[in-house]
Amino acid sequence: MNIPANNPYLKSWVEVAQNSDFPIQNIPFGIFKTAQLSPRVGSRIGDFVMDLKSLFVLGYMENLPFEASDFSADVLNPMMKKGKKATRDLRNRISKLLDAAHKDLQNNQHHVDQVLIPVDQAEMLLPVHIGDYTDFYSSEQHAFNVGCLFRDPDNALLPNWKHIPVGYHGRSSSIVPSGVDFHRPKGQKKPPTAEVPVYGESNLLDFELETAFFTYEGKPLGEIITTEEADEYIFGMTLLNDWSARDIQGWEYVPLGPFLGKNFASHVSCWVVTMDALEPFRTAGPIQKPKVLPYLEYTGEKHVDINLEVAIQPEGSEETVVSNSNYKYMYWNMNQQLAHHTVNGCNIRSGDCMGSGTISGPKESEFGSMLELSWKGTKTIPMKDGTERKFINDMDTVIMRGYAEKDGVRIGFGEVKAKVLPAK
Amino acid sequence: MNIPANNPYLKSWVEVAQNSDFPIQNIPFGIFKTAQLSPRVGSRIGDFVMDLKSLFVLGYMENLPFEASDFSADVLNPMMKKGKKATRDLRNRISKLLDAAHKDLQNNQHHVDQVLIPVDQAEMLLPVHIGDYTDFYSSEQHAFNVGCLFRDPDNALLPNWKHIPVGYHGRSSSIVPSGVDFHRPKGQKKPPTAEVPVYGESNLLDFELETAFFTYEGKPLGEIITTEEADEYIFGMTLLNDWSARDIQGWEYVPLGPFLGKNFASHVSCWVVTMDALEPFRTAGPIQKPKVLPYLEYTGEKHVDINLEVAIQPEGSEETVVSNSNYKYMYWNMNQQLAHHTVNGCNIRSGDCMGSGTISGPKESEFGSMLELSWKGTKTIPMKDGTERKFINDMDTVIMRGYAEKDGVRIGFGEVKAKVLPAK
Repeated sequence: MNIPANNPYLKSWVEVAQNSDFPIQNIPFGIFKTAQLSPRVGSRIGDFVMDLKSLFVLGYMENLPFEASDFSADVLNPMMKKGKKATRDLRNRISKLLDAAHKDLQNNQHHVDQVLIPVDQAEMLLPVHIGDYTDFYSSEQHAFNVGCLFRDPDNALLPNWKHIPVGYHGRSSSIVPSGVDFHRPKGQKKPPTAEVPVYGESNLLDFELETAFFTYEGKPLGEIITTEEADEYIFGMTLLNDWSARDIQGWEYVPLGPFLGKNFASHVSCWVVTMDALEPFRTAGPIQKPKVLPYLEYTGEKHVDINLEVAIQPEGSEETVVSNSNYKYMYWNMNQQLAHHTVNGCNIRSGDCMGSGTISGPKESEFGSMLELSWKGTKTIPMKDGTERKFINDMDTVIMRGYAEKDGVRIGFGEVKAKVLPAK
Repeated sequence: MNIPANNPYLKSWVEVAQNSDFPIQNIPFGIFKTAQLSPRVGSRIGDFVMDLKSLFVLGYMENLPFEASDFSADVLNPMMKKGKKATRDLRNRISKLLDAAHKDLQNNQHHVDQVLIPVDQAEMLLPVHIGDYTDFYSSEQHAFNVGCLFRDPDNALLPNWKHIPVGYHGRSSSIVPSGVDFHRPKGQKKPPTAEVPVYGESNLLDFELETAFFTYEGKPLGEIITTEEADEYIFGMTLLNDWSARDIQGWEYVPLGPFLGKNFASHVSCWVVTMDALEPFRTAGPIQKPKVLPYLEYTGEKHVDINLEVAIQPEGSEETVVSNSNYKYMYWNMNQQLAHHTVNGCNIRSGDCMGSGTISGPKESEFGSMLELSWKGTKTIPMKDGTERKFINDMDTVIMRGYAEKDGVRIGFGEVKAKVLPAK
């Protein structure tokens, strides 16, 4: 694979702070608008959003298989429909234009002023039109913790868990971008001491620390994508907060799975970081025992070393980091998830969103939900402002961040944040 | 509600056979194309498809809030986005144009030739772009049967079942229209006698007799649609065959619900029959005990009397009807389903598809799946060709039909059919 944009020695003529998530080696994709500009495709370098529509119009995308409408779209799907080679070539082109050694754009201040927009002038939108949203359950520590909390610590993992990358369908309509605040959900729940269910606001509102990957257009209905082929169908990743109302979920989920306990809101970060940008951070996954079925076997390093953190910011106070985890803790990788998802012939489309499931590490400080951190409400988590949490309070803002780092290069996701407003 | 198109004494100048599903009182909506015509919106009268794009262009839709692009779309969503009043007025207008007492269209043979297309010249397509697909589980007899087969006949219904219209998210990408054949799915399953799971084709392929309803654009995220308001958000209904691979489903579905056991294919019938057309067939639902929570209470007759049947046609042989059921057997009605779905603030969009869940009646001959009809494979179902079935064989075509009938008026859905090809 030739991805010149990943060269760790590349420097951009655009100034990028040392700890920025968005050096020239990143080049993520997103959708933005400004007071003047209609929604369109952008990339990011340091503290600037790069307007790809203008870049196209100014002639900097010659010999790439894109049209103006791919970049003036209000979702990334038309661009993604062009496939992996096209988006890779596009990322390499943007890298070249931003390279300090390359003068074309750098020396044309008029064009620079047009295509580089200070990030505080841009509003980020949901990057992708999500056709279908699937959420997996692929972190062993998370599945083990949940099994301990709700079933039997001696048989915490269910019999199918090490054979199947367990997943379920979620709701795409309520996936919103970072920054969209939402109201605490109401619903039906049955408190342990109650005889009958009651209606009311969720008292056990939780985050779930996840990542998501977005797919290219897949094969027709009836065709299988193998673990080997999967890389060609995965565009990039974001952070995902899969909010969960534990009391609503607990009463509803047997036998058909989570529904209203999940679908009131899910938040994604706004920059899709490409798998190409994450390639240098690949790492080996756990040895899978028992051996998986042949259709789930894979070769090479298919996990990714991505540091993840969750902070809670009470209203008017500073934030407290409550969890540090890592995407490498996944038991099942994306290639296995995609091969499993299509093994029955299920088709995927450009823009499908696949959640990792809550990512918990082996240490207590690495657990990816309040359910686990507070051990089902039996412990409290101290905040810097002196208050405590078992679950999420009204007016709390939950912030997730993620980045990969190696050889002095840091590829970040930015953040996904949202404030919980009181129930209506 | 003033719906002149429902007048049972209306007769059309277009000849309609006595037993047709599509008299002038129906006026359903769908998407069709022909060898000459690009995909577009159509209606149906007897054995003719009515080309609504041409009808618009010829000036017959004056003073209705539609544009040409609403009818030249390859999905009904743009038309549905105009809302209930608009689509009701449209149906009333079409009714008037087809009314024997009305001469405008009838007397212009040139226009008639243009807008009425013999049904055998039209290919029907998926009528709606489905944003999200939710499947409910709302037939008491079905839930009871499944509970008996897999759990305890003395406690067949789970504790939440009479409190919640239980539902789960399904996959929209693999919903296809009637007539699209598909291959028997493969996947992971664990036979009862096996030590470890195996990979292979499903041996327990089943249909599920369902209906679906399609929604108008809902309220913003965070808002609730009440049972009282629900009628305004429901456009119409189709038949739905929610194919299920029981062996794949059985091994995967604990704890997060059905996934690959369902998402390899689901078929819908091609004509969306409006709720307005079904209004005369409303009927009372069962008395719900225990009393439901106030947000699930409703007034009026919200169930619908729709006869349903399932036939299996072995390759090269005549069909055998294996089930006769009725939509009125639902425990939870659409208004309750929609109120429950949005009670946590979950938003619905124009074109969302909501499945009823398998509809089983109290008699054995009214069960809506082979799982129930063969009582988990302990009984055989005789075919007219002398063969027997416990589940669905390769090359079997499964056909579902549905109609409502009263006062000499029959409003039908046509059929949803699909052939099972051997696993690839």
